[in-house]
Amino acid sequence: MPIPNTARPPERADRTALAQLLEPASIAIIGASRDTSRIGGVALDHLQRLGYQGQVYPVNPRYAEIAGLACYADVESLPAVPDVAVLALGADEVLPQLQRCHACGIRAAILYASGFAEAGEAGVARQAALTAFARESGMAIAGPNCMGLANLTTRAITAFATTFRAYPPQDGPGAVSLLTQSGNVCAIVYATGRQMDVGFHQFINTGNEACLDYADYLAYLADDARTGAVVGYVEGLRSGPRFIDAAARLRAADKPLIVLKAGESEAGSAATQSHTAVLAGNQAIYRAAFAQVGAMQAGDPTHLTDLAFLSGFRQRSAGRRVVVASVSGAMGALSADLLSAAGLDVPCLPEPVQQRLQAAVPEIGSVANPVDLTGQLFNRSGLAYAVLDNLAAVDGVDVIFLYATAYLLDRVADELIDVAGKTNRLIVVATTGEPASRARLAAAGVALFPDVARAAKALGTYVGWLGTQARTAHWMALRAQAADRPRAEQLPAGPLDEYQAKHWLAGFGVPIGVEAVAATPADAARAAESLGFPVAVKVLSPDIAHKTEVGGVRLGLRDAQQVREAAAAVVAAATHAKPDARQRGVLVQQMASGACELIVGVTRDPVFGPAMTVGLGGIFTEVFHDVAHRLLPVDRAMAREMLASLRGYRLMTGFRGKPAADIDAAADAIAALSDAAMALGGSLAEMEVNPLLVREAGRGAVALDALVLTQQPNHDGDRQ
Amino acid sequence: MPIPNTARPPERADRTALAQLLEPASIAIIGASRDTSRIGGVALDHLQRLGYQGQVYPVNPRYAEIAGLACYADVESLPAVPDVAVLALGADEVLPQLQRCHACGIRAAILYASGFAEAGEAGVARQAALTAFARESGMAIAGPNCMGLANLTTRAITAFATTFRAYPPQDGPGAVSLLTQSGNVCAIVYATGRQMDVGFHQFINTGNEACLDYADYLAYLADDARTGAVVGYVEGLRSGPRFIDAAARLRAADKPLIVLKAGESEAGSAATQSHTAVLAGNQAIYRAAFAQVGAMQAGDPTHLTDLAFLSGFRQRSAGRRVVVASVSGAMGALSADLLSAAGLDVPCLPEPVQQRLQAAVPEIGSVANPVDLTGQLFNRSGLAYAVLDNLAAVDGVDVIFLYATAYLLDRVADELIDVAGKTNRLIVVATTGEPASRARLAAAGVALFPDVARAAKALGTYVGWLGTQARTAHWMALRAQAADRPRAEQLPAGPLDEYQAKHWLAGFGVPIGVEAVAATPADAARAAESLGFPVAVKVLSPDIAHKTEVGGVRLGLRDAQQVREAAAAVVAAATHAKPDARQRGVLVQQMASGACELIVGVTRDPVFGPAMTVGLGGIFTEVFHDVAHRLLPVDRAMAREMLASLRGYRLMTGFRGKPAADIDAAADAIAALSDAAMALGGSLAEMEVNPLLVREAGRGAVALDALVLTQQPNHDGDRQ
Repeated sequence: MPIPNTARPPERADRTALAQLLEPASIAIIGASRDTSRIGGVALDHLQRLGYQGQVYPVNPRYAEIAGLACYADVESLPAVPDVAVLALGADEVLPQLQRCHACGIRAAILYASGFAEAGEAGVARQAALTAFARESGMAIAGPNCMGLANLTTRAITAFATTFRAYPPQDGPGAVSLLTQSGNVCAIVYATGRQMDVGFHQFINTGNEACLDYADYLAYLADDARTGAVVGYVEGLRSGPRFIDAAARLRAADKPLIVLKAGESEAGSAATQSHTAVLAGNQAIYRAAFAQVGAMQAGDPTHLTDLAFLSGFRQRSAGRRVVVASVSGAMGALSADLLSAAGLDVPCLPEPVQQRLQAAVPEIGSVANPVDLTGQLFNRSGLAYAVLDNLAAVDGVDVIFLYATAYLLDRVADELIDVAGKTNRLIVVATTGEPASRARLAAAGVALFPDVARAAKALGTYVGWLGTQARTAHWMALRAQAADRPRAEQLPAGPLDEYQAKHWLAGFGVPIGVEAVAATPADAARAAESLGFPVAVKVLSPDIAHKTEVGGVRLGLRDAQQVREAAAAVVAAATHAKPDARQRGVLVQQMASGACELIVGVTRDPVFGPAMTVGLGGIFTEVFHDVAHRLLPVDRAMAREMLASLRGYRLMTGFRGKPAADIDAAADAIAALSDAAMALGGSLAEMEVNPLLVREAGRGAVALDALVLTQQPNHDGDRQ
Repeated sequence: MPIPNTARPPERADRTALAQLLEPASIAIIGASRDTSRIGGVALDHLQRLGYQGQVYPVNPRYAEIAGLACYADVESLPAVPDVAVLALGADEVLPQLQRCHACGIRAAILYASGFAEAGEAGVARQAALTAFARESGMAIAGPNCMGLANLTTRAITAFATTFRAYPPQDGPGAVSLLTQSGNVCAIVYATGRQMDVGFHQFINTGNEACLDYADYLAYLADDARTGAVVGYVEGLRSGPRFIDAAARLRAADKPLIVLKAGESEAGSAATQSHTAVLAGNQAIYRAAFAQVGAMQAGDPTHLTDLAFLSGFRQRSAGRRVVVASVSGAMGALSADLLSAAGLDVPCLPEPVQQRLQAAVPEIGSVANPVDLTGQLFNRSGLAYAVLDNLAAVDGVDVIFLYATAYLLDRVADELIDVAGKTNRLIVVATTGEPASRARLAAAGVALFPDVARAAKALGTYVGWLGTQARTAHWMALRAQAADRPRAEQLPAGPLDEYQAKHWLAGFGVPIGVEAVAATPADAARAAESLGFPVAVKVLSPDIAHKTEVGGVRLGLRDAQQVREAAAAVVAAATHAKPDARQRGVLVQQMASGACELIVGVTRDPVFGPAMTVGLGGIFTEVFHDVAHRLLPVDRAMAREMLASLRGYRLMTGFRGKPAADIDAAADAIAALSDAAMALGGSLAEMEVNPLLVREAGRGAVALDALVLTQQPNHDGDRQ
């Protein structure tokens, strides 16, 4: 039986029906209106004015004709079966009308109506009926409570956004598809993108997702030849695993997926929940998921648009090394600051390159990086070309970043275009003002931003994304292997005590220490003598997860007498604190010390399924929040990466003359815990090894305490 | 004798001459040109076209008339003495011409010419001569290597920026004065500010600062009635103390000072050094200085402009609590996220307020905060007013933040303006697109931003600045007191050993422990017996600052024999490692333990003088960089604030059931160290107490080790 949270579930939506929804050759508008300020009139107006070449059928019994088109009394009277029906009707009319559409052979529909899950109990019931109908009929249904869709390439624009009037679509096909959980954000990103000449293909806002959800559309776009990049806005996903599959397919095809997630703050999170009735979820887990599938995460709507813009340039490989050229020393310095803050390197240029630059342009103040071209650019024809051409040829540089005011940029545009034609390097330009050369620069492959901070921020995110393809492929392969592996043998019924938990985990390779269970204080003393002092004594109970808090742990016991007393004391304390807890005697462990301690936890995220958190424990985790998150599975390489991403990692590598920790052993233990969690599948509730004692390099690691909590298997990682 | 780094030095520039430079009633342009693309022609063109009402005298022996104005052969031929002479001449002609100007009674000049300190040895000499001339003559001289100045209120525009053609000055007076160390940044902020309808008064770029420096201009602007806010770009300051005085005067007058500092990154810092030949300095100390004088620090040029814009609105008091209203649930959630990230609170609205909102607008999805007005706004006249009017009256709200697309914003502009007229609260609006109502909203006191992320970021910085007046006044008073206090008695000649350092610090109130100096191992053992075991033994030498590293420290010695051995061992180890170091026996200390350890250091910043760093020491300082910086003096209240600003502060307040540390005692010790450092004045090189052991609350603190390094007194904090 496949593991629900990692196996790839079947596509839910029929691809042909989805294609009819998103690439319709004919459209019926049911509830069409002559009034272009009404919902039933806007779509018709868009289709007619913005160049849709397909057939449009207005349906409204009150008219024989609307805007020069024959209008039909009802869907049954249509002369042909349209690809998609747009229902400009109230909530109560939606389901009956859909049934009639289905009876006529229509396979796709768009529902504007609100009054469903977002609108109280009656609405929830209405939506449930709609969802059931969609499943039975197999229709591809967008919405309800959505703004409509738009295919900007074919101009099949049924979205009622006024933005298409203010910012018309590009001529010809576009490569960026919008996929958002908000009609407004869809329209905003479209508008700001058009101002930067981004060409769009699909404009999808998912509304209530009663039938088709975010992952369904994403899966379609992943395989859509026309879509070169997907720009998304997410409040909460219904299915993490299906999202992962679709997103990873995009990454494999080297198509950027750029996501803006709402709900980072408490107020924002509460707002998204009331807005779409979808759990905003654990933001840290979303961030981990986006990183693991190779999606870029944007911080705000403008950053999202800037990334869409930058992704449209041809360069799909670049490292972090940026050379900055500027017409102003100050703007060069500020650019270097902002690029560094965005995670990029601005390395000093090699001496021979500096000499070449100095020879070409002797009066230049600085040639180290940033390169200061100075305002001399204005008078000295060829100066910009000489410098940029040199920079484009320098080894050890990945990106050329230029700042120039619009006035000076126009002056050197031809030289810049000549250089761009000769190099495969990414060229990013930031400017102030409105350069006349904008369109020519774009055509030459130069990415022009109206603001230096925006340019630096977008470049940092984009360059961080380049080269993540292999990482995503690696994780997807691990994920597929885990899904194919057999489930774990049945665990002992009920919760596990510490001893059981450790020994079960040991079966997967989690290292555990030498220890013994003792029924009485006398047994405990004998066990301690056999293990060797000093020892620790802990109360053993499946019902006490936090033993220290109930006084159930004594450490550093040095002789038999101390052990006897401690064994009696921990049992008494636990009995006092939790009289109903089952007790199974005490656990006697050898005391151990090492280079550092880790906390390794696995929880079940309601959206994405099992996820792991690794940190250095104690104050590092609780005060400095220095933790790494990953969705499972995690192998040794990923575990090492998690450790290396901690700010406190230096404490593991031999800080201030202290011994380095056995990072290999720690990584192996983390990967083993991942294996164990994956083997439990849907039965996993929570696992933790805390602390995982990591000894000096070469000496291994050991789980000093462990917790395994199971649950009734469920499929909440794929809430369909 | 006043202490150079804290006392207020005299103003260097004659205020009358500065007023002639910045508010000239007449201007001579020496080297005037008919060619408006040349430097000597641009200023003339600006003065004639942009409405300057004063007298303009072109000077050039080649012409009798330029652009309708009489042209004079030389400065001696002028019919009257102009307020300012603009020298459009090459570097070599500058000084002779200045001397002629001076002889004619001219008291202010502007120098465009490059070829001074930025241009090699000959340039440095040229600049030194210029500086000397300025001192002797008392002339107020701007530049060299500057773009020229502009008074946008009087249109006395001698800056050769093309931006004045593209973005003309406002009608009437402006309140924002630009003061930058880069002509380009000056022009860029001017241009972006004009696009947001910011009105400017002065446009000052300081160039090489051979005569007048940044602080001179800032002091002038602080007392300038027309200047309501100063917007600055800084690469490096020549005088920290004079900057502090001027900046604090601005804060006292409730005039915002908004600063962008270059050099945050290594590459940026290197670039500013080569650009202006001024040390970029320690960024952390600059940040501390800006905070202490109540300046806002911007992160990039657009942030700088946005803060200038926001500072122009009338509200000069507001707390952090923001209520968000939006026409889109998604944009409301994203706004809440961005505002929270900017340090603002988005609190849930009280239940009665929610009820009132719900009554006013029954169909609204969310009224908790963010408030979702929905697109219904478009059709329902009065809805926006009803909601916003309610929000403007809610207790516990400081700022109203609205997101609306341009289209919807225009629809509700009248309602918003009505509400703005009734409330004193700050109203910030973010939009997408170009609203037709922009100017009307601005006139009504509504701050409109074209981007939600920019709005949130600017609001966070601005609200953080509001209310800092008292803090700056408090520090300035401390600073004045310290300057009036007598200097410390002469320290022992040469470097201090640990015992001397501690006992000298103890005189200022730094708490030290019980300890004794012992000349021999036998003496050490006797001293230990008298102090009580366990003890620590350390080698005592003024020449060994880092004793642990040479094996000069032994801890936890439990009897006389251990002490004897240790005393011999540390002396031997120190002798081996540093044979030339003077030795003075060993120091025997009682071992002490406490709730936490601090590191408290004082260094001398080349720009700002003595500055203090406080951290929790060890990994917290070195790995997590969890430190607080302040310029001295620091009193108890400031010391508490430094501690509270540490991320690890929770470790001091009773983390996980551990005892709370004696924060009062720690703060007193920090303030005492500040007193000691201030008393040394220019003799201070470096001081450190590491560790300062802080015991449990009520039990005090103790300096376990201390370092005091002195130097020949200097005045590097005020490099004139």
